[in-house]
Amino acid sequence: MAVVAARRANVVGLGLIGGSVGLALRADGWRVSGSDADRRRAERALEIGAVDAVDLDAEAVLTIVATPVAAIPAAARDALGRTSGAVSDVGSVKAPVVMAVGDPRFVGGHPMAGSEQEGLDGARADLFEGAVWVLTPDDGTDPGAYSTVQAAVAAVGAEVVALPPDRHDALVAVVSHVPHLTAAALMRLAAEGADEHRALLRLAAGGFRDMTRVAAGHPGIWPDICGENRAAIVPVLDRLTAALGELRAAIDADDRGRLLGLLEEARHARLNLPSRLARPADLAEVRVPVPDRVGVLAEVTTLATELGVNIADLEIAHSGEGEQGVLILLVEADRADRLFGGLVARGYRPGVGRLE
Amino acid sequence: MAVVAARRANVVGLGLIGGSVGLALRADGWRVSGSDADRRRAERALEIGAVDAVDLDAEAVLTIVATPVAAIPAAARDALGRTSGAVSDVGSVKAPVVMAVGDPRFVGGHPMAGSEQEGLDGARADLFEGAVWVLTPDDGTDPGAYSTVQAAVAAVGAEVVALPPDRHDALVAVVSHVPHLTAAALMRLAAEGADEHRALLRLAAGGFRDMTRVAAGHPGIWPDICGENRAAIVPVLDRLTAALGELRAAIDADDRGRLLGLLEEARHARLNLPSRLARPADLAEVRVPVPDRVGVLAEVTTLATELGVNIADLEIAHSGEGEQGVLILLVEADRADRLFGGLVARGYRPGVGRLE
Repeated sequence: MAVVAARRANVVGLGLIGGSVGLALRADGWRVSGSDADRRRAERALEIGAVDAVDLDAEAVLTIVATPVAAIPAAARDALGRTSGAVSDVGSVKAPVVMAVGDPRFVGGHPMAGSEQEGLDGARADLFEGAVWVLTPDDGTDPGAYSTVQAAVAAVGAEVVALPPDRHDALVAVVSHVPHLTAAALMRLAAEGADEHRALLRLAAGGFRDMTRVAAGHPGIWPDICGENRAAIVPVLDRLTAALGELRAAIDADDRGRLLGLLEEARHARLNLPSRLARPADLAEVRVPVPDRVGVLAEVTTLATELGVNIADLEIAHSGEGEQGVLILLVEADRADRLFGGLVARGYRPGVGRLE
Repeated sequence: MAVVAARRANVVGLGLIGGSVGLALRADGWRVSGSDADRRRAERALEIGAVDAVDLDAEAVLTIVATPVAAIPAAARDALGRTSGAVSDVGSVKAPVVMAVGDPRFVGGHPMAGSEQEGLDGARADLFEGAVWVLTPDDGTDPGAYSTVQAAVAAVGAEVVALPPDRHDALVAVVSHVPHLTAAALMRLAAEGADEHRALLRLAAGGFRDMTRVAAGHPGIWPDICGENRAAIVPVLDRLTAALGELRAAIDADDRGRLLGLLEEARHARLNLPSRLARPADLAEVRVPVPDRVGVLAEVTTLATELGVNIADLEIAHSGEGEQGVLILLVEADRADRLFGGLVARGYRPGVGRLE
């Protein structure tokens, strides 16, 4: 199955992320067509080499929708109607988008990369180098579409992490959205009464500056993100308030032992925050006979993510003899056993082979 | 009045800060005696050149107490009893310490500097270069003692910011203590359920890593700091909870306009966060005839801080003809008018002269 033979892609929406996707795919040898609601921006993208043409290529195997979150469903449905390839997006919120689009050829995506410099002029071919790029296959996802999107994401240098859409949304609420809101809240606190006493804020040391830096960004995209992801954000805000309340209670009671315990827990967690994976040198192949039923792809890729196993490549081979296929996963050699064990525990019967 | 003619100092407590004070004062030509509850640490300080002698020099014009917060009052009173010089400290909380010591020759201090490397082995002569160093004179502070401490702080390269003790405590609660607690709370949130899903935390992007970095530090000193400063910290935690509640309400109601407004406010505040002052090139002298009454020094130095005027040097000249003296302040030339105006508004009759 030649998944990405055509190597022709569309990018819809040419800001920082869309422009960078165009540059990165072109650097990998793809032919990229691009469009933007703002015609002048599309022409600028052509000028800087982020796209080969201002157009939507009906024969592209892949369309990446990189518009603001609110515009994704309509743009994705448009691309699904005009091409027969896979369609993905780069929005910060996934469950509402995946539900709104509701098509087997649509795979939700979210590259965890950004830049201080916003807009098309900040676009870089290496923006995704080493970044985590979440894909959110669900029960209805077409394996061929998933494989196409994954290959393209790997081609731009990112590491794919597969998660169910709602799981992604809960996680980014914890590691991105609520921290952003917290930075804003801390900053507003420091600003209270600061008009008369601005000079005193010079006391703010590096830690405070680090913690509030994100609050300096343009807030333009945040109301939409928070609106779309409020089902995940509101409970996380409540958990944060509860965690602060625990600390407050220990301090108010001058219970220094209890406070030390809470801070030790936090320290332990921070020291154990996993770092980004380096690119693996040795790869192994894990072959998993899978029934041709909904949800298998999502189950296997999500299991790999939960086990900390990076899937470097993925292919589906159909036996042609019935309802069985073989899922071929390329993973780091020293993690293959872990994935093998996880698959066996879930009732699969995988085989492992080391690559030359 | 030769305030610091002797250039002999004691440092009590030889960790990161005490060791760095010793190195910096010695680099400036001072003779430094030092002591520590741990005799081996004092000997190590002698070895690395942080002190000239392991001792308490009874003729030192200045003793800096750099012990943990809880040990400061006893160490400061001991130094006040054994020397006739000024005594200061470097604790993160000021009002309880200043009240506990209660001596005109004691000036509370707090250098806003630190290092990733803790302990004496992290000590550096340039640790305070360009840092803010808060001094907290109050109604009872002796001007000669204040002047001695200020000259030493300036000699190690720090910029003095004068604040009333309780004002300092409220400010560090906002810009240091509560942000630290918040980082811990965010980290504990992210850690919930992370045992099964550690790999997912690889999603945590740079912003989250920045916001939680301080939580990785040894929590050892925090229970004491939070205990001593709980009168300031608890209300700030309550204000933070209220600010998070405002954001939560806007998100829960999907009021995107309101949310945008709150985030815009935070952005404005962050962009206006004053940066550290560069060292001024031109200095001007402001001479302020002052009555010899309590509180004048604290009033003038605090006024300068509130006006954003850095006092590079300070001296008191007594006329010898009664109860009047002259406070001589050295400030940046382009801020002298502002200080002049502020002093006039408070009923002083200052004069300004530009230095050669």
